[in-house]
Amino acid sequence: MNVEIINIGDELLIGQVVNTNAAWMAEQLNLSGFRVYQFTVVNDLQDHILEALAEAEHRAEVVLISGGIGPTRDDITKHTLCKYFNTRLVFNEDAFRDVEEIFARRGYPVTELNRQQALLPENCTGIPNKLGTARGMWFEKPRPGGGSTIFVSMPGVPFEMKAMMTGEVIPRLKQIFKTPFLYHKTILTQGVGESFLAAQIEEWENALPSHIKLAYLPQPGMVRLRLTGEGSDEDILKQQVESEVLKLTKLIPEYIFGYDDQTLESIIGKLLTEKHATIATAESCTGGTIAQMLTAVPGSSAYFKGSVVAYSNEIKERILGVNAESLEKYGAVSEQVVTEMAVSLQAKFNTDYAIATSGIAGPDGGTPEKPVGTTWIAVASPGGVYAMHYLFGDSRERNIRRTALQALNLLRKKLPVAQ
Amino acid sequence: MNVEIINIGDELLIGQVVNTNAAWMAEQLNLSGFRVYQFTVVNDLQDHILEALAEAEHRAEVVLISGGIGPTRDDITKHTLCKYFNTRLVFNEDAFRDVEEIFARRGYPVTELNRQQALLPENCTGIPNKLGTARGMWFEKPRPGGGSTIFVSMPGVPFEMKAMMTGEVIPRLKQIFKTPFLYHKTILTQGVGESFLAAQIEEWENALPSHIKLAYLPQPGMVRLRLTGEGSDEDILKQQVESEVLKLTKLIPEYIFGYDDQTLESIIGKLLTEKHATIATAESCTGGTIAQMLTAVPGSSAYFKGSVVAYSNEIKERILGVNAESLEKYGAVSEQVVTEMAVSLQAKFNTDYAIATSGIAGPDGGTPEKPVGTTWIAVASPGGVYAMHYLFGDSRERNIRRTALQALNLLRKKLPVAQ
Repeated sequence: MNVEIINIGDELLIGQVVNTNAAWMAEQLNLSGFRVYQFTVVNDLQDHILEALAEAEHRAEVVLISGGIGPTRDDITKHTLCKYFNTRLVFNEDAFRDVEEIFARRGYPVTELNRQQALLPENCTGIPNKLGTARGMWFEKPRPGGGSTIFVSMPGVPFEMKAMMTGEVIPRLKQIFKTPFLYHKTILTQGVGESFLAAQIEEWENALPSHIKLAYLPQPGMVRLRLTGEGSDEDILKQQVESEVLKLTKLIPEYIFGYDDQTLESIIGKLLTEKHATIATAESCTGGTIAQMLTAVPGSSAYFKGSVVAYSNEIKERILGVNAESLEKYGAVSEQVVTEMAVSLQAKFNTDYAIATSGIAGPDGGTPEKPVGTTWIAVASPGGVYAMHYLFGDSRERNIRRTALQALNLLRKKLPVAQ
Repeated sequence: MNVEIINIGDELLIGQVVNTNAAWMAEQLNLSGFRVYQFTVVNDLQDHILEALAEAEHRAEVVLISGGIGPTRDDITKHTLCKYFNTRLVFNEDAFRDVEEIFARRGYPVTELNRQQALLPENCTGIPNKLGTARGMWFEKPRPGGGSTIFVSMPGVPFEMKAMMTGEVIPRLKQIFKTPFLYHKTILTQGVGESFLAAQIEEWENALPSHIKLAYLPQPGMVRLRLTGEGSDEDILKQQVESEVLKLTKLIPEYIFGYDDQTLESIIGKLLTEKHATIATAESCTGGTIAQMLTAVPGSSAYFKGSVVAYSNEIKERILGVNAESLEKYGAVSEQVVTEMAVSLQAKFNTDYAIATSGIAGPDGGTPEKPVGTTWIAVASPGGVYAMHYLFGDSRERNIRRTALQALNLLRKKLPVAQ
C-alpha cells in the first residue's frame, strides 16, 4: 500500500520555505506502518494540481495533500478538487459552526471570507481542525478494479496539519488499512561516532530477530538508535523490543544517556530537581552554550544558579580565581586550569555541581602541541572534581556543540539516580 | 522555461532527512532567473526513477537530479540513466584521474569500487566534482519539436551538490538559456513585526517600479526584506535597486541593521575589532544565549571578554554586585536592576561595553503587573548606560531569541561607525 504526499505552495518552489511538512508527515506515517512512495511539490495553479492528482492516483492508494486551503487562497485548492471529482461546493453547517466558535473565542467578527471557508466539496467528509478555520477534506474515489483511492486535503500551516494528521487522518487510515503493530524505541547515545558505535554493537545488531529493525540517526555530537519492531501482538512485540533495548544497554552503558524524546538538559534538570541540588557552569570554549542549553528548559531556575563565561585569561584569573601561575605554566587549555575553574566556581556560586570547559574551538589558536579541537572538561561534584581530555575536529561550530554535549553527559554520570 | 528538481533517496521518504537540497537549489535557480515548476522525490527503485524522468520531461526543459550517485549506490542511478537514454557505461579517463587525485590527497589507495565511479553513460558530459569522487552528468535529449531537454545528475551530499550547482550547472544553464539580469539586495531588520513593517513601508512598496519586486522573509526576531530587480542592463539595474534600498533605509533607519549575509554578531564583531573595544554580557533571562551568539563568530576572543549568567537573585547580588535593596524594592525584572547589572559588569570585567538582560521568559513566573514576556535590556557604553522595556509573547524559546537579538541591536546602535 503506497502513500503519496502532495504539497502545494509557491513559497516551497522558490526555496523560501523548506518542505519540513513532507518529512514530518512521512516520519509519522512510517511510524504507523504506512509506506510513503513519493513526494510531489507543485505550485498554486489549477492545471498543475490536477495533473499531480491524476499522476498520484496511478501510483498510490492514499494521496495526502497539504497547503492552499487558508482563508485567502482556499479557492484554488477547493475548486480544483471539485473539478477533479466532478462535484460542486456546498455550504457545510458543521464547518461554519467551527469557524464561528473559533472567532468567538478570539473575539473577532466572522467575515464573508471566513464564511466561504464553510463551503466544502459535496462528495467529501469534512475533517475537524481544532487549531484553525480551514477544515480538512476526505475523499474516496472508486478504483476501476474495486476499492477506493483516498485523497485527504489538509492545511499547510504546520501545527494545524500536525494536529489533524495525528488526531484524525492517521487514526482513520489505520481503521481502513490493516497495518501491522509497530513498536518503536529510540536509544540516545553520546560520546561515540556512528562507525565506532556500529562496530561495537555489530554482533547484537546481526542477532536481532528479522522483525526488529535498527536505524542509525546521527546528529552533531550524538547518535540516536531507533529500534522498530513489527508484529501482530502488541504486548509480545513490546516485550521483544524492550528485551533488545536491555541487551544493548548492558552492552554500551557508558554511551547511553536516555531514550525517546529525552534530552541531556531535561534529564539533568529532572535529576537535579529530585535531589534539590544546584548547578553552575564556567565556560571558556563553549562561550555560554551549556548555560543556554540548560536554561532552555522551562523551570530551570529551580536548579541552575548561573555561569561565568571566561573567554579571556584575565577573567579566568580575576573573576573565577584561577591561579596566574597555572595559566602561565600549563596554559588556559589544560587539566590544571579547567579543574581550578570548576572548583572555584562551585565555591563562588555555592552550588552542588559545576561544569567547566576550556578548549581551542578554532579556526585559529591551534599549535602543534594543542591543535584545534583540543578540549578539557571538568566536573565538580560534592564528592570531588575530575577532568577529561578530548580531541575533537576542525569545525568551530561542531567543536562547541560536541564539548557542550560531552560536558553535560559527564555531569549526568555524576548525578545520583533516583531509586 | 521550466525547471524540475528530482531528489532520489529513501532517507527523504521515511522522513529521516528533510529535503533542504531542493529548497537550496530552487532558491539559487530563482536568484539566477530560472523558474522551478515542480519538486519530485522518489526512492531508489529503477522503475520509479524512470517514471519520474519521463513525467518531468513532459513538464520541464531542464531536469535537475540529485542523489544516488555515491560510491556504494551509484549503480542504480547511473544504470537507470543509461536505460532512460538507451546508452551504456564507458570508462572515462578524466573522471578516473579526478578520483585518483582525490585519493592521493587523502592518502588512501583507490579501490575497485572507486574505479567504478569513473564509469559514465556514453552520451553524457561529465561535470567535475571538486569536493568528491562522483562526477555530475549532463545529458541533452532532443525534443520532437526541436531543441533539447537538459538532464543533469548531481550528488546528493549537500556541499558537493552546492559547489557543483554554483560552479558548473548554473553557469552552463545561463549560457544556454537567455535569462534576464537579476540584481538582489536583502535588507535586514530587527525589532519590528512583519505586518507593522508592511504598514510602515506600504507607500514605498506601492511606488516600486514594476521590474523590482519585494519579498518578506520573516524569521524569529527579525524580518529580512529582499528586493529583486530584473532588467537587461546590469549597471542600470544595480543603480535602480540600490536607489530603492537608499529610500527604504531613510524611511526606517531604526529597524535596519545590515544587508545580505551579515548577522548582528558579525557586524558587532567588526565594529568592536576596528575600535579595539571590548564587550561582556550579564544575562538573566537569556541564560547565556547572547554570549553563545557572540562567541560563535571566529576570532571573537579579540573583543569578547566574558559573561556572568546570573539566573538567581543570589548571583545577581553576590557576583554581579546588584544592590539587595534594588532587588527587594523593584524586583529582578526592573530598570533599576538591569541597569545595575550592566554597569557593575562593565566595571568588574573592565570592558568598554556591557549588555544586561532580565525578563520573564515563561512559561511560569508571570504576574498581572509583570506578565510572561516582560523584559528589560540595558546597554552600558563609555558614554553612559540606558535601559529599555519590552513586552514579548508567550513562547519561552521565542522570548529568549527576541531578547538576545534586541539586546545585540541596541548595542550595535551604541557602537561608533567606521568613517
